[in-house]
Amino acid sequence: MTDPDGAEIGPRIYEVPQGDDRERLTCPDCGFIAYENPRIVVGVVARAEDERILLCRRAIPPSIGYWTLPAGYMELGETAEAGAMREAWEEARARLTLTGLLAVYSLARIHQVQLIYRAVLTDANVAAGPESQAVGLFHYSDLPWDELAFPTVEWALTQDHQAHMEGHGQAFANPATDG
Amino acid sequence: MTDPDGAEIGPRIYEVPQGDDRERLTCPDCGFIAYENPRIVVGVVARAEDERILLCRRAIPPSIGYWTLPAGYMELGETAEAGAMREAWEEARARLTLTGLLAVYSLARIHQVQLIYRAVLTDANVAAGPESQAVGLFHYSDLPWDELAFPTVEWALTQDHQAHMEGHGQAFANPATDG
Ligand SMILES: [Zn+2]
Ligand SMILES: [Zn+2]
Repeated sequence: MTDPDGAEIGPRIYEVPQGDDRERLTCPDCGFIAYENPRIVVGVVARAEDERILLCRRAIPPSIGYWTLPAGYMELGETAEAGAMREAWEEARARLTLTGLLAVYSLARIHQVQLIYRAVLTDANVAAGPESQAVGLFHYSDLPWDELAFPTVEWALTQDHQAHMEGHGQAFANPATDG
Repeated sequence: MTDPDGAEIGPRIYEVPQGDDRERLTCPDCGFIAYENPRIVVGVVARAEDERILLCRRAIPPSIGYWTLPAGYMELGETAEAGAMREAWEEARARLTLTGLLAVYSLARIHQVQLIYRAVLTDANVAAGPESQAVGLFHYSDLPWDELAFPTVEWALTQDHQAHMEGHGQAFANPATDG
């Protein structure tokens, strides 16, 4: 991170803090330790009543112009499920019901864990949000495989199809008694 | 965070950065923005060949002296599965094979998402690591329900039992072709 004059600011050197067993990103100016953790991306494979699958054409880098699933960083104070539904609304104006966790992808090199849920649209009206150029509903046989934004989009679409054809068990989530 | 003299350091005020839509934790001294994200805890419900379940008695706060599953923060550069296995080794000197994702718990109030895997011990020899006072193997009927460290431990033990009795579908993970 740099300030407006281009000077390096904030945590930027690696040191082993007292009592820890690995290097952590530390600010040499003020001593603040930025514990770096994998970030959680939440997303959905959402199908309309006619089984078409919702994709968004990205209006922002990376992979601008390519198709992706509604997905984005989970925010503080929300559940993973709520985050997935929020992203579907923000990127595709989609209202949906989640039907279970499809997959957990670990992308160690880019420090991400992706939680991808399955969903059904409760309203066929979808529309591009500010981060999308367009939204589309595609039958599995018509998916734009050559224009997908990320490998994980292909993984999720393939695994959702497998789950759709063969059935799919689910991981548990918070029990209903929580809260 | 405070420096050794007790002065506040690092990101500590909330401001909406340019182009963002919510307040982020910012350092008033150097301008660094600390994006706060939920942290991922990875853990395991591991069973020995005789179906006994591995628990650790905590040697560190919170809930010191209470029983928990091997679990801890996922680190950068590892998959969720590797993190769960690392924690089982660090806290219980356990060698195991993961058999699938049991549950994803969202603990919005404490900014955690827990990924709990099922596992079988490949070696019955377990031992307390530095963060454990003791380790134990318990039949489900003998679990120390009144001395569990956290509600999520009870959730996971109950759901693992349900999965053990009724069978349990699994979420997908990275495809074998990844990497
Ligand atoms: Zn600083
Ligand atoms: Zn600072």
